[in-house]
Amino acid sequence: MTQSSSERVEKWSVFELALRGPSDGNPYRDYPLKAVFRYGGREVTVDGFYDGEGTYRVRFMPDREGVWSYHTASPAEQLDGVAGSFECAPASEGNRGPVRVRDAYHFAHEDGTPYHPFGTTCYAWIHLDEGMQEETLRTLAGKRFNKLRMCVFPKHYAFNSADPDSYPFAERADGGFDFDRFDPRFFAKLERRILELQKLGIETDLILFHPYDNGRWGFDRMSADTDEFYLRYLIARIASIRSVWWSLANEYDFMEEKTTADWDRLFRVVQEADPYGHLRSIHNGTRMYDHGSVRFYDHAKPWVTHLSVQHWDVTLPPIWHRQYRKPIVIDECCYEGNLPQRWGNITAEEMTRRFWDSAARGAYCTHGETYADPKDDIWWAKGGKLHGQSPERIAFLRDILEDAPAGIEPIPEIYDVPTIGVEGEYYLQYFGIHRPCWREIPLPEDAAYKAEIIDTWEMTIREVEGTLSGPSRLELPDKVYQAVRIRKLAES
Amino acid sequence: MTQSSSERVEKWSVFELALRGPSDGNPYRDYPLKAVFRYGGREVTVDGFYDGEGTYRVRFMPDREGVWSYHTASPAEQLDGVAGSFECAPASEGNRGPVRVRDAYHFAHEDGTPYHPFGTTCYAWIHLDEGMQEETLRTLAGKRFNKLRMCVFPKHYAFNSADPDSYPFAERADGGFDFDRFDPRFFAKLERRILELQKLGIETDLILFHPYDNGRWGFDRMSADTDEFYLRYLIARIASIRSVWWSLANEYDFMEEKTTADWDRLFRVVQEADPYGHLRSIHNGTRMYDHGSVRFYDHAKPWVTHLSVQHWDVTLPPIWHRQYRKPIVIDECCYEGNLPQRWGNITAEEMTRRFWDSAARGAYCTHGETYADPKDDIWWAKGGKLHGQSPERIAFLRDILEDAPAGIEPIPEIYDVPTIGVEGEYYLQYFGIHRPCWREIPLPEDAAYKAEIIDTWEMTIREVEGTLSGPSRLELPDKVYQAVRIRKLAES
Repeated sequence: MTQSSSERVEKWSVFELALRGPSDGNPYRDYPLKAVFRYGGREVTVDGFYDGEGTYRVRFMPDREGVWSYHTASPAEQLDGVAGSFECAPASEGNRGPVRVRDAYHFAHEDGTPYHPFGTTCYAWIHLDEGMQEETLRTLAGKRFNKLRMCVFPKHYAFNSADPDSYPFAERADGGFDFDRFDPRFFAKLERRILELQKLGIETDLILFHPYDNGRWGFDRMSADTDEFYLRYLIARIASIRSVWWSLANEYDFMEEKTTADWDRLFRVVQEADPYGHLRSIHNGTRMYDHGSVRFYDHAKPWVTHLSVQHWDVTLPPIWHRQYRKPIVIDECCYEGNLPQRWGNITAEEMTRRFWDSAARGAYCTHGETYADPKDDIWWAKGGKLHGQSPERIAFLRDILEDAPAGIEPIPEIYDVPTIGVEGEYYLQYFGIHRPCWREIPLPEDAAYKAEIIDTWEMTIREVEGTLSGPSRLELPDKVYQAVRIRKLAES
Repeated sequence: MTQSSSERVEKWSVFELALRGPSDGNPYRDYPLKAVFRYGGREVTVDGFYDGEGTYRVRFMPDREGVWSYHTASPAEQLDGVAGSFECAPASEGNRGPVRVRDAYHFAHEDGTPYHPFGTTCYAWIHLDEGMQEETLRTLAGKRFNKLRMCVFPKHYAFNSADPDSYPFAERADGGFDFDRFDPRFFAKLERRILELQKLGIETDLILFHPYDNGRWGFDRMSADTDEFYLRYLIARIASIRSVWWSLANEYDFMEEKTTADWDRLFRVVQEADPYGHLRSIHNGTRMYDHGSVRFYDHAKPWVTHLSVQHWDVTLPPIWHRQYRKPIVIDECCYEGNLPQRWGNITAEEMTRRFWDSAARGAYCTHGETYADPKDDIWWAKGGKLHGQSPERIAFLRDILEDAPAGIEPIPEIYDVPTIGVEGEYYLQYFGIHRPCWREIPLPEDAAYKAEIIDTWEMTIREVEGTLSGPSRLELPDKVYQAVRIRKLAES
């Protein structure tokens, strides 16, 4: 049978084909469904999935405007040989396509718009009650974060031990899980939340496995077959959503049931099942080894697109850049808050400093908030409200970076103060906890520059009187957390 | 001939034998002089030295009370076969003997008094004019530092380029140096200053070589023979002063004329020439290598008594303890000040934090001050006045550590907050830039404890009401730089 071709889907959005099919046996396993999408000579093969109650779906994200055709293949007669076409229309305002690696160390949307990640963390927010989830979205709408780290599986950890209303796997009558069947209600919620985040301009950095289960539900210790079964189902459902990133795991090294070889295999499963090449990484814990180093999964492996690091020392990116040649996101560097635990009690000043010290080295940092709460409603795990003072400072930095010219990179020639910029054009230099009373800036002789002193905590930008040319001495305030921005003046 | 035995010298002080001898040829090289000191069956052989104008001297530090005898040996007839004895009297108040390594990671004077180094840095102060040197001593007399890092050779570096009034080597008429002859006036000054520091309770961490010469005088690029000639002369003159430590070099790795094999050899020269086994170390610069590590001279080598490290990350001592099994002094961790250079512009808060974060890990930190000055009179290089706010906080920490029971060591069992103490007796826990609103302290059940909250910046100690027993929750102030001290109550 042939479906209508009248459907229009905008570029980088989801084309969905719904089919009725068999519901006997175990439809999640028994009736594989594939579809091939064609555009000119190009073919993209995607997996369909069973969505419960006799409905099968195929989802696809087109990346070229024009007519795409498709046909399905399945051992189930009803699902086999379905063919059709649809028209891919131009992307609408705000739809810039998936985020890709650009210029080795940076990111951009597929339409070329630079993307500087300014993420925050709500690991288990979709597992909370509906009202709390809505509050999380309202909070995010009022901030300027553009990435959210969150888990597929529920979390059993300090300050967070409630059971969610649904799980990725179907619950058995005896209280355990049927690891051969999924719960489509859970995935529908997940998809809805990802799309709601997308509307807010927020990428979803989706954590596929994590250790905060400890056998309570068993999602941290499934068989290799079940891990792959889960990944393929998840990817078939959501890879067509442009704003998804794959984070193989959080604190993968705390998951004692899995080895490095397991992670290698799971990365390859994701890479093979996702036809769009969404960003892929894996996030470490912070066990310390000799020489004070923290051991990571080897981010040089070809299936890792970028570093998603946990480290408290945000001055290390220049070393990791040399070592891995990939973009760096420090996805945990401690959180603004006052919990007893060391990872959850830095000040807003320190959180802001870590963002700036990362940015001034051409890397990116991720926010989280962990203020003790009488009901244990803590943003980092549950979402809800934000109470801290760093989000507006992080937004201030985001504005500055988005206002910078394309191609800003670390400038190692500027001695001993981290600086990013474009040589001869633009310099952004950050002093952090250091407090020089003056600095000489080695500007070129053949152009005129304007300097500004940025107080990154007070969020003020003060223009320095006059113009600069050649090596120039700048007097600096007697304060920490200062930065300097220098821009070339347009030639008159 | 036999000298009088009526002389009395107190233990760990200097017995000096002056002899007239030949002044023809080059007496610094031509007439070696040795003396053997005997106490019971024990013999200690020391080198004498030429002090100019026909005078030779032998200096000796006795470490046992009672009668010591001696005799000399030299190819010069006048200096050979001189014999005598003296009586070693008990040490007077304040004379505790040289500082030694104790309990693997700590120090104590030879009389057993614990010694916690709280050093500061005036690299070139003895090369300044007399008035400035006297001012330095007055400043030190008003503070509580008990170690001073200083150079033998003059320094040619940023903020410091004046010529001193005398040099270790004799000046030639043509303006260069005679590297075969010393200038006894210089050494007399050096000795006087070391003894003046000793009177103030300050050990001298004497830097034997350094790179801040760059060929101006050539002391950084002498021949291997001259290096050894200089070391042996210096050691013959001053090793008998109990408060001397040997720092082979400052930023040894910036001295491009010397290899690791050279440093190995020079360490062995020092070790062989010094009959008293004064503390020996060598201080690195901070070039960063892969994985963010700073490469040191291998402090595990047997002639290194302790680590004298430069590093900005004062949380690393637990790793170095495991690696080297020696005491750690972070002799440069940046200085309180506001110079343009990164190493010279941390705040007093940060300097104080680095002392506490080191101490709470069983290591020690060294102070320096680098405030920009119209005359470039900067403490770290020249001495003079101190302007900063960290010295009194460092003294406050010194008081706390000196008040702690003997045998305090890091307690790794206390999760994620650095803590030193004696299990069951005493705990000192430091939160630094972290700001927990409460902590649970895992105290033993079978004793009662008293807790105090220490504000390390405000220098206040507040007693927590009541007594604690077993795992105890402590509410903490909403501030950074807090510490907790817990002491077992005497059983009633």
